[in-house]
Amino acid sequence: MSVTKVPGFVAAGMACGIKASGAEDLAVVATADGLPVTAAGVFTSNQMTAPPVLVSREHLVTTGGRAAAVVLNSGNANAATGTAGRVDAEAMCALTADAVGCKPAEVLVCSTGLIGFQLPMEKILPAIPKIVADLGGDGGMAAARAMMTTDTVPRLTVLTGTALDGGTFTIGGVAKGAAMLEPNMATMLAVLTTDALLDATTATDLLRSAVGVSFNCLTVDGAESTNDTVLLLASGSAGPVATDEMRAALSDACRDLAIQMADDAEGSTKTVFLTVTGAANDIEAAKGARDTANCQLVKCSWYGEDPYWGRIASEMGAAGITFDPSTITISYGGQVVYAAERAQSVDEVALAAHMAGRRIDLKVDLGQGDGSAWVVTTDLSHAYIDENMRTS
Amino acid sequence: MSVTKVPGFVAAGMACGIKASGAEDLAVVATADGLPVTAAGVFTSNQMTAPPVLVSREHLVTTGGRAAAVVLNSGNANAATGTAGRVDAEAMCALTADAVGCKPAEVLVCSTGLIGFQLPMEKILPAIPKIVADLGGDGGMAAARAMMTTDTVPRLTVLTGTALDGGTFTIGGVAKGAAMLEPNMATMLAVLTTDALLDATTATDLLRSAVGVSFNCLTVDGAESTNDTVLLLASGSAGPVATDEMRAALSDACRDLAIQMADDAEGSTKTVFLTVTGAANDIEAAKGARDTANCQLVKCSWYGEDPYWGRIASEMGAAGITFDPSTITISYGGQVVYAAERAQSVDEVALAAHMAGRRIDLKVDLGQGDGSAWVVTTDLSHAYIDENMRTS
Repeated sequence: MSVTKVPGFVAAGMACGIKASGAEDLAVVATADGLPVTAAGVFTSNQMTAPPVLVSREHLVTTGGRAAAVVLNSGNANAATGTAGRVDAEAMCALTADAVGCKPAEVLVCSTGLIGFQLPMEKILPAIPKIVADLGGDGGMAAARAMMTTDTVPRLTVLTGTALDGGTFTIGGVAKGAAMLEPNMATMLAVLTTDALLDATTATDLLRSAVGVSFNCLTVDGAESTNDTVLLLASGSAGPVATDEMRAALSDACRDLAIQMADDAEGSTKTVFLTVTGAANDIEAAKGARDTANCQLVKCSWYGEDPYWGRIASEMGAAGITFDPSTITISYGGQVVYAAERAQSVDEVALAAHMAGRRIDLKVDLGQGDGSAWVVTTDLSHAYIDENMRTS
Repeated sequence: MSVTKVPGFVAAGMACGIKASGAEDLAVVATADGLPVTAAGVFTSNQMTAPPVLVSREHLVTTGGRAAAVVLNSGNANAATGTAGRVDAEAMCALTADAVGCKPAEVLVCSTGLIGFQLPMEKILPAIPKIVADLGGDGGMAAARAMMTTDTVPRLTVLTGTALDGGTFTIGGVAKGAAMLEPNMATMLAVLTTDALLDATTATDLLRSAVGVSFNCLTVDGAESTNDTVLLLASGSAGPVATDEMRAALSDACRDLAIQMADDAEGSTKTVFLTVTGAANDIEAAKGARDTANCQLVKCSWYGEDPYWGRIASEMGAAGITFDPSTITISYGGQVVYAAERAQSVDEVALAAHMAGRRIDLKVDLGQGDGSAWVVTTDLSHAYIDENMRTS
């Protein structure tokens, strides 16, 4: 399954005691032979960057984009923990490197969970040799499970494509969370593996591009965590792949994981696909889409299954983008609800059925130019508040 | 009370049938003698500007900042109504002008309520001569009541100061709403009257400045309505007032109305005063304050009375402003909960008591420079969702 579906990669997951519930909370994804391969990362731009993010970023610089393993924990974000937090993140890498047989800088590290508490290193350190001993070609699911916080199902993906030599290349992935949707459990993490042959520069470029059209199009509550991390390890055993083919495949894999996050976002009852077209440019389209997706009032109306276009128009108007109010067209489920400055008559039964489904399709055309953008988001429910009103 | 506490101003409110409930929905504020006085307005910057906003703005330009009356309705925003909506807004002004005895351009108009429906002019037009006939020096409360949508109490203010000649000047105000907090009932409206002597340019300058430190510091859900309007009528009968004195008094009046809006914001259980200091500059302070105030996760924690600083730090970090994570200090109710990259020990009982109150005081010092900002906001409750999940 997932990351271990790619030849040459192993994984494992276990409970080491970080979570009081006793659930799995420690994961490792590594190369089967312990040798470093091409590695790339895309990280949060939050100024309160968590120590594990700082450490992973530095390791990729030190190695010039090589890694043999990723060690991850859930239940504690090791964020806002200062210098002590850095020491702990480095120690996790060093111990994993010892066990795998690589250099400490060839290990990347991710944490997710409550912000502001030191990691219980007395529980993590003794567990690392054990989990590395347990690494195997069937460990993808266990690793995904150990990354979960309030996710109700593990997020896995796998897809294949054709390499330049006519053979098959594979991409596998595990992920957790959706932006800052979790209560204390901030963070979106994803680890992707592939056997395609990529140099570090290309891997970084392709990963950034894939994240741009997938995770960066996912917004649950507009909050960006201190720990967001997407990593790619590429072994090269399947040989070279056409760049466009690889870009498309990586984007598909990331988009699949992003949609899984929205579908299982905490407290959400709707996954909303919002497409903005006809903006003056792509940047304005993205701004309009994101502001509308993050508007509490709009999210409440989705929860209420109400195709009220007034709020959509008003949010687009408030987004600080240019358009003529007379040219905006708004559709829900393929039915135009507002156009030419007028509410439009619709098939009420079909529209109500669409709004009652798990997935809502919302399209806004601004009638200005060729700019377009896509976001996937969720509604705002009572359950979201219940999950997030207290940290304990 | 309120606008009619200022000598020379009259007001009235009545039910004309816009609201199905039969509640008051039409208001007029005017000069007692029907003669125009200095007038200024600050309006929404939403691109989907509602026709009454367009008409009021144009009237102020036409007259060079003079008005004799303001006509307001609740229950229908006359927004996203196109050319027909403009004709209706102009007709409201023309009929009010006829009844008051001034020019149509000397009347300003405000609407609030559901977006996207034509005004029921057959109900409004016959009511205008009646409400103008009813104008009186005791009509301030009735006018405030007729502006209400889901406000549970009318918002009124009155204060006095000393004019240059040693006499007293008065400022009165009526208002409704709080940003886009209402379900369909978008909009914040305020009408202020004063007997201070101001020219149109000074009145506009002072009103902008007062709005900047009051209504613009109020954010309930980050949404800016299509109809937001703040108007000032200044009769001059109290003579000239020192500019600084007038600026301070007008700011106090607007701040009083803004805090009333937060205290009665729909579904809210907490009014939160968030002060950011130590930012690189005031703009960054305001950005950090506003982003944090509008964060769903942060709002949920206030509803849960949870002084969790991790989310505050994370939101400041995500706001795109510059600061060193090691220098951020966060206090709730005067107690430092986070400093020097560590959670701080606090008086738990006192802190819990503070969080359990209606008003929460949150201070964030970024330790970078002299930039500061202040916002007043609210929590996110189940009741907010209940009020906003359906338009009908």
